[in-house]
Order: sequence, then structure tokens, then C-alpha cells
Amino acid sequence: MISVVILGAGNLAVHLFEALNNADQVSVVQWFNRTLNPLESYKNRAAITNDISKLVDADVYILAISDDAISGFSEQLPIHDKLVVHTSGSVGIHDLDKKHRRGVFYPLQTFSKDAEIDFKDVPICIEALDKNDLHLLKGLAEAIGCAYYKINTEQRQMLHLCAVYVNNFTNQLYRIAHEISDAKGISFDVLKPLILETAKKVQTLSPYMAQTGPAKRNDKKTIKKHLKLIENKDHKAIYELLTDSIKKTHGRQKL
Amino acid sequence: MISVVILGAGNLAVHLFEALNNADQVSVVQWFNRTLNPLESYKNRAAITNDISKLVDADVYILAISDDAISGFSEQLPIHDKLVVHTSGSVGIHDLDKKHRRGVFYPLQTFSKDAEIDFKDVPICIEALDKNDLHLLKGLAEAIGCAYYKINTEQRQMLHLCAVYVNNFTNQLYRIAHEISDAKGISFDVLKPLILETAKKVQTLSPYMAQTGPAKRNDKKTIKKHLKLIENKDHKAIYELLTDSIKKTHGRQKL
Repeated sequence: MISVVILGAGNLAVHLFEALNNADQVSVVQWFNRTLNPLESYKNRAAITNDISKLVDADVYILAISDDAISGFSEQLPIHDKLVVHTSGSVGIHDLDKKHRRGVFYPLQTFSKDAEIDFKDVPICIEALDKNDLHLLKGLAEAIGCAYYKINTEQRQMLHLCAVYVNNFTNQLYRIAHEISDAKGISFDVLKPLILETAKKVQTLSPYMAQTGPAKRNDKKTIKKHLKLIENKDHKAIYELLTDSIKKTHGRQKL
Repeated sequence: MISVVILGAGNLAVHLFEALNNADQVSVVQWFNRTLNPLESYKNRAAITNDISKLVDADVYILAISDDAISGFSEQLPIHDKLVVHTSGSVGIHDLDKKHRRGVFYPLQTFSKDAEIDFKDVPICIEALDKNDLHLLKGLAEAIGCAYYKINTEQRQMLHLCAVYVNNFTNQLYRIAHEISDAKGISFDVLKPLILETAKKVQTLSPYMAQTGPAKRNDKKTIKKHLKLIENKDHKAIYELLTDSIKKTHGRQKL
């Protein structure tokens, strides 16, 4: 049995609580937050507290708090030589106070309040300074059914950057398509199966192999036609830059 | 029963043949291609031909050929007053020769040779000059289990443009993440669940509502950190442009 204290009450903290609380080999022994209000609805399922001096003993303390707060908060924690992990993609392992045994438990996934997430679809990037602690974090990931990857701080920061490309930037491309289709009275629903299939394709094929379309074919006529159709200059700049990028990847000359 | 002649032998033609051939209410009465070679393996399942003068009678003739060939080929077809449809996103309905009853049957999906596709996930954009023909095309879409949308030529050309954003450009963002992760010895597998979840999220949430991340939060510290991490100047330009785009969408100032 791995005993866990969760610290924080954001989206990730809530999703982690549900996953850890459901796991047979894990016991969430306490849930801390500076204010009790967001934890109130869980008080029958967890020992909640807002008093940092009352932290109970546990195998691992998981900080699910904002990046900027990690360093200072880890310093304030009134515990020593305990395994304290943060859950951030961009904060270094050494940003945790050195009075702790330090580690990282970074779930590479997008969490929203409303959307349920199956932890089987959440890869965990783990890192620890101590070999036994790394082993414990592997056990924790396995207990909630996650694939885990041993990822060091530099790699994790790169993954966090990659996540911005495949999640935030991709979502912005969806948004642009939504704007364009909306303006012409077309339901965004028409595009949803293509969006899903595009993501499915790279589950088995490399993005390089999966690429199709006018930029890859260097189909100048279609590209010119599209540039004429685009009314918004920001949309046009994105079209041009990504078309160039595809051409370069696939050995075509620039626009 | 709707009788169909397929013309062409590319990816889409093959996928259409399989779908139409499996449909109870459809009969593929002939499959034409300029060269017989790509059709040889289907000769036991379809009447194949490379002789345009031998086209048989059918309810609908589906041109699954390249955009540039549609206009000229429709002119050469030795039939009159028959429903001839093309399958292109960017070619106008009036580019078909006016001796035909004209229509469009545009499947908005990405087709690859190897990947099986369930036609339930293929929305069909239909257009026809004649009301009865439109009705026939609806029946054809329904027969292969597709959702269909009545979309005019201008809308269809805009959808084709949108498809470039959500398919080709999105896939290029995956490619960039692949390049960045590869360079640091990180398996691209770590990113796959996030890619899929990002696409799943907008099946029920608007891209606007689904957005998260440093650009939306205007988290200057993280954006600065990322820009320092990016080694490739093309990747950096894309990061900056899409970050600005997200900021604009969500009412933040420019970088």
C-alpha cells in the first residue's frame, strides 16, 4: 500500500484524487489546500485540511499546484526527508527544496473540469533523485493504470514544449477552422470526423508518413486558390508559414 | 437499388468501391480507369474497363479523379443527361460539362492506402443542380452509412480550406513535436494520448472552450522559457505566430 498526501485543489489535483482514491494499492491519507472551500465536497471521502502544520505521515506528497508556487511552497512544508514530488512539465526537480527527497510525477495530458479522463490514457513522466523513490513512483503510476516513462528534467521541459504544439496550437488550428466555417454558415460538425481521424492516424503512422495535401504535393494552384479564399490576414500568415514548413519537411522549395 | 459507375483508381476510388460494393441498396455496375492495371485485382468483384466508349448505363457516374482532370474528362464522357458527380473539395459544380446532370459527392475525410476507414466516420458534402439528383445523392450517402450535408460550391471550397488547417497543418505540428522529442531521445509515444485527447475534446466542446496553456493564460514566463528552448528558427516562428493567434482569440495582447 502506498500512502499519499495530495496538496492543491485544481483540475489536476481533483483528477489525481479520483484516480488514486480508486486504486487498490493506494491510500490517499490526506488532502491539503490553503482554503478548504474547494475540498468541502470531498470531506466524506478524504481527510481534508488547510493547516500545513497538521500534515500527516505518508510515503509520498504530491504537489498539484501552480508552477510558480512549487519552489516556495516546498520550502514551507514542515516535513523532512520525505518524498515530495511536483506535477509540472516545466519546473526542474531541483526547484523543490533540498530538505526533501525530490521527484516529479508529471501526467502528460490535458485535464478539464468537465471532461472525465481515463488514466489509462495518461502517460506519466517520472523522475527522482533516489533509485528507491523512482521505484515507488513507478508503482504509483502502475497502481492507477498509467504508462510511465523515465524522463529527466531537460526532456520533460522539451515534452512540455511539444505538448504546446500538439495540444494548444493544434486546438488553435481547430479554432481557425471553426471561425472560417462559421462565417460561411457551415456546421463545425462536418469537420469533426476529420479532426479525429488525423489524430488517430499518427497513433500508428509517423506524422511524416501521414502527411497529405497541397503543401506536401507542392500543388501551387490549390495553394494559390486557398490564399485567395482566406479573408483574415492572421489566418493567411498561418497558412503561409505552415505550408512552407510542410514543403521544407517534404523537400519542396519555399512558397 | 442505385446503380453506380466509378471512374478512377486512386485511394478514394478504392475506398468508395469497397463502401458502395458492400451496401445493400447499391450496385457498382462498372469500374473505369484509363489503365486496367490498378483494377486487375478487383476484376472478380466488378466489371472493369479502360474503354470509355463502353460505359454502361447507371444512375450515377462518380468521378474519383484528380482535380485538374475533372473538367476535361467530364467533357470527353460519351454520355448525356446522366448524373455525373465529382468528389473534389475545391472544384466547382459548374466545372463539370453542362451536357450532364451535375453534382458533387465530396467525402470530407483523409484516405490512405493502408488505413481502413469506416464510412460512418466520413461526412459527405453533397450538391446537385437538380432536386431529384440531390435526393439520389442523399440516398447514396445513407446507403453507405454516411452523415451528409447539403453544401454549395463556395461552402465546399471553404471546407476544403478548413480541412488543410485541421488535417495537414495539425499533422505538421505533430511532425514538429516529433522532431523536437526525437532530438532529445524521447519516444513520440509519450505524446500520442495527448494528441488523441485534444481531438476528442472538440467533438463535444468548442475549440474556444477547449483551449488551455501558456498563450491563453498569457503566462509570459513559460512562453519565454519555451522560446529559449526552441533550437530551430522555423519552429520558433510557428510558436510565436500561433501564440499570438491564441492571445488574440482569447483577448490577450500580442507577444
